Amino acid sequence: MKEKLSIVKIGGNVIEDEKALAIFLTAFSKLEGLKILVHGGGKLATQLATKLGVESKMIDGRRITDAETVDIITMVYGGLANKKIVAQLQAKKINAIGLSGADGNSIQAHKRPVKEIDYGFVGDIDGVNSELLSNLLSINLTPIFCAISHDGDGQLLNTNADTIASEIAIGMASLYKTTLYYCFEKKGVLLDITDDNSVVKNINTTKYNELLSEGVIADGMLPKLHNSFHALNNTVEKVCLGDVTMLDKNTEFFTTLTL
Amino acid sequence: MKEKLSIVKIGGNVIEDEKALAIFLTAFSKLEGLKILVHGGGKLATQLATKLGVESKMIDGRRITDAETVDIITMVYGGLANKKIVAQLQAKKINAIGLSGADGNSIQAHKRPVKEIDYGFVGDIDGVNSELLSNLLSINLTPIFCAISHDGDGQLLNTNADTIASEIAIGMASLYKTTLYYCFEKKGVLLDITDDNSVVKNINTTKYNELLSEGVIADGMLPKLHNSFHALNNTVEKVCLGDVTMLDKNTEFFTTLTL
Repeated sequence: MKEKLSIVKIGGNVIEDEKALAIFLTAFSKLEGLKILVHGGGKLATQLATKLGVESKMIDGRRITDAETVDIITMVYGGLANKKIVAQLQAKKINAIGLSGADGNSIQAHKRPVKEIDYGFVGDIDGVNSELLSNLLSINLTPIFCAISHDGDGQLLNTNADTIASEIAIGMASLYKTTLYYCFEKKGVLLDITDDNSVVKNINTTKYNELLSEGVIADGMLPKLHNSFHALNNTVEKVCLGDVTMLDKNTEFFTTLTL
Repeated sequence: MKEKLSIVKIGGNVIEDEKALAIFLTAFSKLEGLKILVHGGGKLATQLATKLGVESKMIDGRRITDAETVDIITMVYGGLANKKIVAQLQAKKINAIGLSGADGNSIQAHKRPVKEIDYGFVGDIDGVNSELLSNLLSINLTPIFCAISHDGDGQLLNTNADTIASEIAIGMASLYKTTLYYCFEKKGVLLDITDDNSVVKNINTTKYNELLSEGVIADGMLPKLHNSFHALNNTVEKVCLGDVTMLDKNTEFFTTLTL
């Protein structure tokens, strides 16, 4: 029987807030079995860019990553955020190891082709080095990924953290019984965006299509759900969406997605 | 028979200069056998600190690392410099993996006790996780260390890169036939500091004491040689000092230290 593996993605709002991060890392450290963490960097990169006088260009909520910006992202996501998480998990006796996609050639990508918009040094993922990750897990290491991939030709690439999480989950699904957790500020998919208690507990493909046509899933939830069903359609067993309490076995107040 | 392992340390002046770094990484990638790289960050951290309006405090050439400065060092050494090196080595088909001392609990340290000077968040090394490094080497990974350790209690610590290199060499010496390379801007230990060709090719303990008493070894060379003989006295087989050409088997124009 395959061993269980949890892939947990946390959003930038947790990374930005020291208290929220400490609460999350405690919950993550208690999660049983093999696990991998993927983190974004949130507004920290924008804040550093502002201090350095580098303009943050966004189109449709997506960052345009020029050469200066990819350096800033590498400093903030790959350096500060990643190493702080690793050091704090070590204090909780989790043998964490921080990785970008360049480390161990763990996430191979290519620079997004220029069509209407030139996103700059942004990566579209080609593959995940599941053999490496499996080796690291087997010596009791817990990989902690920042949202950076590489093109194999020396260039680091800013990459969507939700996508990294789902691609890792897909890459590992043939080796492990894989669950993907998207941990964010809401308790799950909400029927009424103004009511935090209107969580839809279970969504399957039929329900997903219903909610899509009713317009319940919109804005930032669209790519998250798209990534989730992409993962489910590629042998990931289960995807869960919710806030930090989702990692606690005593609560079931979150959204579970299955095919 | 023990397998060969090379520990190579490069200084900040190489990291700061893109061309020099590319030349170094080509030489490093061609070095045969198992290898580990340790890099400083040089003036890059000071440059970022200046841009951010954070004052860089130095006493006797040593940086005083306050909370803001340890964040800057984590961004520059652990993020930008480390990930760029890793990505560039991947392009040369070296399966590099970037590490701080917190990653995999690879370098355990404690905050330097305050005596006459409070160095701030500076680490004195307690131990190297040789089992982890040996595991990583055995799956064909090449560890790339930035000069950061941790205290096991969540705190990252700015740590001298020369010392990290010698402590790794010592930690690995029981498992591998270990050579430590200090790669810097000079061709080796010079009899006459103004003459780049006055390299002392071989230094043993007797010669070392002679050169010390004659004042030939001074300034920045003192801690480097101290670290080197500390390593040799702790079962490291050989220490070499020189510029990047030292890694090329066809040149012998560098300094070799033995007991």
